[in-house]
Amino acid sequence: MAEAIRIIGIDPGLRRTGWGIVESLGNALHFVASGTVASDDKATLASRLCQLHDGLADILHRTMPHEAAVEQTFVNRDAVATLKLGQARGIAMLVPARAGLPVAEYAPNAVKKAVIGVGHGDKKQIHMMVKVLLPKASFDSEHAADALAIAICHAHHRQSAAYRLAMAG
Amino acid sequence: MAEAIRIIGIDPGLRRTGWGIVESLGNALHFVASGTVASDDKATLASRLCQLHDGLADILHRTMPHEAAVEQTFVNRDAVATLKLGQARGIAMLVPARAGLPVAEYAPNAVKKAVIGVGHGDKKQIHMMVKVLLPKASFDSEHAADALAIAICHAHHRQSAAYRLAMAG
Repeated sequence: MAEAIRIIGIDPGLRRTGWGIVESLGNALHFVASGTVASDDKATLASRLCQLHDGLADILHRTMPHEAAVEQTFVNRDAVATLKLGQARGIAMLVPARAGLPVAEYAPNAVKKAVIGVGHGDKKQIHMMVKVLLPKASFDSEHAADALAIAICHAHHRQSAAYRLAMAG
Repeated sequence: MAEAIRIIGIDPGLRRTGWGIVESLGNALHFVASGTVASDDKATLASRLCQLHDGLADILHRTMPHEAAVEQTFVNRDAVATLKLGQARGIAMLVPARAGLPVAEYAPNAVKKAVIGVGHGDKKQIHMMVKVLLPKASFDSEHAADALAIAICHAHHRQSAAYRLAMAG
């Protein structure tokens, strides 16, 4: 008998990192929890990275997901913003990997395709479809809603050949 | 009586992260150790970040520095390279911060000014001056030499008002 797979999606950001957890059993998908880990923008960069680390580690400890997925974030902003995002993203990938979870990455258009059916669309459409696909979902920020979209995307892709290939690489 | 302060400098990179440790006592500076933590470029990004994390954590455990310094890396390459560098840099700042070390950041021209006396100059000049300032230094890579330069820079700056201000910010 198949067992439910618990997936954490993470939308990384230095100021706010969103997280969302879903359970996947066959074709069924259920909302488990979501939230936002914030860092104190008056603290040093090193302290802020610790805050993100400790917040995510605490969530993994409390929710015990089996697999993680992180968005391959847009890099269309300036270099300083991209470097900041990279630092937060490093932490977002490290924490689940150190906890022994496989960590998948998805491009933004793959997330859109999985959630709204096409590879383009705005944030509002994504958030609306997250509510349709996960009627019991609640989220305290756009980052948490984006994280749920990433978790949904991984639930759709995890058993495909592309996913197996990516994880073997 | 003053005690020697042991400083680790870190030059972050996803493929190779250099580290270098010096001891500072008054105006005297001594080489302690240096090296390079490499990640396996055939592994997944999450695994590579774990390799950098574990390598740096092991070095801190073995060498027990009191303070850390990381270069505010150049961001003049393309966005993909900047994001990669940011991810490695996030790990390079997280590991010493989680170990309880203060983590200072220095711009590349501050490192050059501390090591070669002016805010511009090429890598060769920096590496040559590292050998002059730390006659017993040996390094297995350019990244390790750069890391020693960052540690030297921190030794020069750590008691200045600018440093105290930066750490309070």
